[in-house]
Amino acid sequence: MKLVTFVRKPSADQHLGVVLDDAVFDLTATGKPEFESMLSLIRAGAVDAAKALAEAARGASGLVPLEDVTLLAPIPRPAKNIFCVGRNYIDHVTEGYKARGLDLKLPEFPQFFSKPPTTVIATGDTIPLHEGITNLLDYEIELAIVIGRDGRDIPAADWRKYVFGYTVLNDITGRDLQRRHDQWFKGKGLDGSCPIGPCIVTDDAIADPQKLDLWLEVNGERRQSANTSQMIFDLPRIVEDLSRGMTLEAGDIIATGTPSGVGYAMTPPHPLQRGDLVTCHIEGIGTLQNRIG
Amino acid sequence: MKLVTFVRKPSADQHLGVVLDDAVFDLTATGKPEFESMLSLIRAGAVDAAKALAEAARGASGLVPLEDVTLLAPIPRPAKNIFCVGRNYIDHVTEGYKARGLDLKLPEFPQFFSKPPTTVIATGDTIPLHEGITNLLDYEIELAIVIGRDGRDIPAADWRKYVFGYTVLNDITGRDLQRRHDQWFKGKGLDGSCPIGPCIVTDDAIADPQKLDLWLEVNGERRQSANTSQMIFDLPRIVEDLSRGMTLEAGDIIATGTPSGVGYAMTPPHPLQRGDLVTCHIEGIGTLQNRIG
Repeated sequence: MKLVTFVRKPSADQHLGVVLDDAVFDLTATGKPEFESMLSLIRAGAVDAAKALAEAARGASGLVPLEDVTLLAPIPRPAKNIFCVGRNYIDHVTEGYKARGLDLKLPEFPQFFSKPPTTVIATGDTIPLHEGITNLLDYEIELAIVIGRDGRDIPAADWRKYVFGYTVLNDITGRDLQRRHDQWFKGKGLDGSCPIGPCIVTDDAIADPQKLDLWLEVNGERRQSANTSQMIFDLPRIVEDLSRGMTLEAGDIIATGTPSGVGYAMTPPHPLQRGDLVTCHIEGIGTLQNRIG
Repeated sequence: MKLVTFVRKPSADQHLGVVLDDAVFDLTATGKPEFESMLSLIRAGAVDAAKALAEAARGASGLVPLEDVTLLAPIPRPAKNIFCVGRNYIDHVTEGYKARGLDLKLPEFPQFFSKPPTTVIATGDTIPLHEGITNLLDYEIELAIVIGRDGRDIPAADWRKYVFGYTVLNDITGRDLQRRHDQWFKGKGLDGSCPIGPCIVTDDAIADPQKLDLWLEVNGERRQSANTSQMIFDLPRIVEDLSRGMTLEAGDIIATGTPSGVGYAMTPPHPLQRGDLVTCHIEGIGTLQNRIG
């Protein structure tokens, strides 16, 4: 099941919906409190109820054509920062050390950092260039996990019991800020630097999240192309390590790292420019597209 | 004005109050929606209204004796991660490099990281030892700023216009995790690793937040003792740098770094042990006390 958060302009009211082919079934219009928002659905554990309602509505009248809605980020305002994993594809680690003229050193433990809720934007929204604040704005396509229920010290083998679904995330980064502030938070925290979407695909609809093709294009030029099987720390390990001593909560988002092909590691470096169109795609989830402005 | 969030056991209902000598005026009991919680007061900009009500109530009957309330963290559930500044007192930077056998290098830019809302606990709460997850749990007393209104690209000269108040924060850290995960988030993100309190002192009640004594004791032994004048990056600079390209929101919390005297830099290192009593005090704000359990 593909879940979306949307508005029908000119109304600004947020609705939760299920995508059925080229239409949306409006769950929020049912009036049930658990379908008020994506977070309320996740927290209520109401995924089966949503599925049943949507299936019953398939083909019925009253569905909203997809072209009549404006998608928001699936969780427009997360209840905490987004968890992120750095340096999690070998080729990306290699290109990073090479770009900085250093010898390759693979991480022995996952590197975690965060992006504040103020970074979150939707597919179709403009990514601010932040001219004068960063001179090297860069992209990073990532598979993101959405957590389905609270858990701490989650064993790797149980990781999927805690997963609600998956989405596409672009970890936009000010490389100069990332480097000069040493800790990555500043370079990762700029307003509008976290496009997420277009939907959340529930866990049952993805056979193996560790075998998904993902790619990113800038103005139609393929820059990143990989498969989630190439992660250094796989998804079970990420959930296990991150949740050791720290409670993951329903609705939490975890970005799982980016493959090689980022702009700053190109020769010469290719910072994002005003007007660039950045397209991210992950197999089985969908396409997230944003222009730099 | 000293603002607190409290419960009157056995009720678990959270109330917002003003401390008047050894009693609390219950703002939430007025029924006004802006006094439902600390965050609602901050977001409504209702500090003057709160002050007027509290002054009118001074000495009246109906005040709650302080000894009858249980304090919670002033903001029990922040709406995003807590912003933190690393390495911001020269003596602490020096002791850190010395403990790791490295040459001193002062940071040229503030180092920012974050602690998730699941770390927040109150004065009197137990700090979990996280045995088997970290072998080197450490303390860090810090002055924390609470933001009063939304702002981005805040010039240093204007910083106080965006401040709601100040509180005491203990940035409990798993040093081994902090080091081995490279980025500090993992070592800073353990459940219960962020005692905050006992109150928020509003900005008007602190003449110069850059001239406050602060100290920390473990079982009565003074370990940290400094003055906020010793920061490398002062409070105006922190707000300016952090808000560049990133919106600070009303209710955001910024921890501003810790002075020297942390346990891991002692010879030999002194990790916190089960049963240890950690007391943090900042002049003009109050005392935050927690036991390790």
